[in-house]
Amino acid sequence: KREFTIAVLPGDGIGPEIVKQAVKVMDAVSEKFGIKLNYKYALIGGAAIDEFGVPFPDETKEVILSSDAVLLGAVGGPKWDNLPFEIRPERALLGMRKLLNAFANLRPAKLYDELLDSSTLKPEVVKGVDIMVVRELTSGIYFGIPRGIFVDGDERVGINTLRYYEHEVERIARVAFEVARKRNKRVTSVDKANVLEATVLWREVVEKVHEEYQDVELNHMYVDNAAMQIIRWPKQFDVIVTTNIFGDILSDACAMLTGSLGMLPSASIGGKIGLYEPIHGSAPDIAGQNIANPIATINSAGMMFTYSFNMPEVEEAIDKAVRSVLAKGYRTKDIYSEGCKLVSTEEMGDLIAEEI
Amino acid sequence: KREFTIAVLPGDGIGPEIVKQAVKVMDAVSEKFGIKLNYKYALIGGAAIDEFGVPFPDETKEVILSSDAVLLGAVGGPKWDNLPFEIRPERALLGMRKLLNAFANLRPAKLYDELLDSSTLKPEVVKGVDIMVVRELTSGIYFGIPRGIFVDGDERVGINTLRYYEHEVERIARVAFEVARKRNKRVTSVDKANVLEATVLWREVVEKVHEEYQDVELNHMYVDNAAMQIIRWPKQFDVIVTTNIFGDILSDACAMLTGSLGMLPSASIGGKIGLYEPIHGSAPDIAGQNIANPIATINSAGMMFTYSFNMPEVEEAIDKAVRSVLAKGYRTKDIYSEGCKLVSTEEMGDLIAEEI
Ligand SMILES: CC(C)[C@H](C(=O)O)[C@@H](O)C(=O)O
Ligand SMILES: CC(C)[C@H](C(=O)O)[C@@H](O)C(=O)O
Repeated sequence: KREFTIAVLPGDGIGPEIVKQAVKVMDAVSEKFGIKLNYKYALIGGAAIDEFGVPFPDETKEVILSSDAVLLGAVGGPKWDNLPFEIRPERALLGMRKLLNAFANLRPAKLYDELLDSSTLKPEVVKGVDIMVVRELTSGIYFGIPRGIFVDGDERVGINTLRYYEHEVERIARVAFEVARKRNKRVTSVDKANVLEATVLWREVVEKVHEEYQDVELNHMYVDNAAMQIIRWPKQFDVIVTTNIFGDILSDACAMLTGSLGMLPSASIGGKIGLYEPIHGSAPDIAGQNIANPIATINSAGMMFTYSFNMPEVEEAIDKAVRSVLAKGYRTKDIYSEGCKLVSTEEMGDLIAEEI
Repeated sequence: KREFTIAVLPGDGIGPEIVKQAVKVMDAVSEKFGIKLNYKYALIGGAAIDEFGVPFPDETKEVILSSDAVLLGAVGGPKWDNLPFEIRPERALLGMRKLLNAFANLRPAKLYDELLDSSTLKPEVVKGVDIMVVRELTSGIYFGIPRGIFVDGDERVGINTLRYYEHEVERIARVAFEVARKRNKRVTSVDKANVLEATVLWREVVEKVHEEYQDVELNHMYVDNAAMQIIRWPKQFDVIVTTNIFGDILSDACAMLTGSLGMLPSASIGGKIGLYEPIHGSAPDIAGQNIANPIATINSAGMMFTYSFNMPEVEEAIDKAVRSVLAKGYRTKDIYSEGCKLVSTEEMGDLIAEEI
């Protein structure tokens, strides 16, 4: 199959601007590799609230479910921050992950040598860092019930439930080991098995799945220690696999090591339809100014070709184009340093598309 | 009152060696400030398992409950790692916190200028970092029920419960604001209120308590963002207040910023009897070699004088002694750098005691 339908959800804030650049790059890819790409646009997050009153309308669900993959910009902004919990833009994200059964969130934290100075860590500590966080995305404390705020006696109590079934751990462990096989064959499973029984089970199941992947090295780490080790010596990690909430926290820590959030993509896979989005947010403060960095979204499109369309050569081509533009000294504002050439969002998109 | 009884629990690994140095320093303090200190020793953790079969024996509980404060070394080690969940050394820690109602865990992460180079972060990013993490310690997901591993249909499921009552949030928020008043009057409350209802309640209660502390500045941060901000620009923080598990993770990240875990103390307060311990573990690999850094434990004893005995002048004296020994170039192995004078655990204890 050489024709794919992509649901394009620009979302809020800088979402529309950066997604536009990714589409530009996909158009260039389409031409170069002879692939037909159909884009179906839909609203999500705040944009959908404004139009339909809900962050994840049925119209959007239909568009997504009739596509081969989803490219998302970003959602949320101060305008919708004071809405009730149930209809805030974030609900759309969580709803979409669940709808797509996208249980495996892959978040690479890779340092670009050209941007070594952007890190707040010493160069010798972060040079060459290349971590893939595999975060469980559709279960755990994000989705466990009971949940809510209840009245107990004369006061209120807030409750959430951390819950993992064996099969949920098994499938995410499998993804981690498979990913590790294509990388440096080392998996660190992060849990809190000295305190939380749910992660005692997690650890046990990961060990069992590991029996089928004896070519991959496995070690276990408590989450508090992992938070330290990421700062102390990040190069010790290849693949990190962990629960939804620990993955949320640790993947952001790993991303920050690189000092350039504007570069980092993510893929949420496991179901039939994959979801691709930058790890950064909607950055409402700089929206519409043509200064946002589109590379994270462009790289997310790159991951789409590997994980949804099984064309890793396209991701490689995109990666090469990005690196070449960086090597030539072009930078958006967020990654600018002295002696480089400052370019706008549009210009960065053009440069990368041309390079393809 | 000028006489205090201190329960001394050396624990496992390097615990006994480092506690011995803290006692040395307390003896010096006792002389200098004219305070009578009675020490009551008891077993905990692996040492207690070996003797009594359980990590937190009744004998130890009695000793603790008849003391004014508890000084703990560290617990655990590979010897006891494969015991069943219920009788592992960590149970002793959790049991003790609960027994003492020590709901507020204070973990200062302060960078010593002399050790600036130990950090993996750039000097300009960490110089002057001085964060106090106030972690809720006796509730949240560490203690919520239901918990355990259950059978559901033909597979197992692991469950833990995150639960906060209003009064639990209220009292920890109060501690954070009080601590902030003695510092730089800024509190960052960390939650995941965009996903977890338990922390929606957390945020609401923190805001309500804040009404009584209008002289303190309050802001809220999601935990994933906090993990990033700690790496990006740690100097933005003064006091961080958060849940048990988030505090476990973030306090370790903050500690690692300083690059010198061997220096950092902690206090667990809120009940009648306070618990003081270094943040580092029992380091079984270097136990008995007289090379461990006793300063974290000595500093923990320092916190005891402030928080349990209301004698901040003693903590100041200990702090001054430590700084002066560092300024003279003495270092244990973990913080050694070229040009310094390498000393043993015992020697470091002697030097600090003499300085008092
Ligand atoms: C916006 C929020 C619900 C989301 C999450 O916690 O999963 C975000 O932080 C992320 O990591 O994608
Ligand atoms: C040993 C463990 C139970 C403990 C915790 O998670 O509280 C430790 O990590 C700590 O932070 O004191």
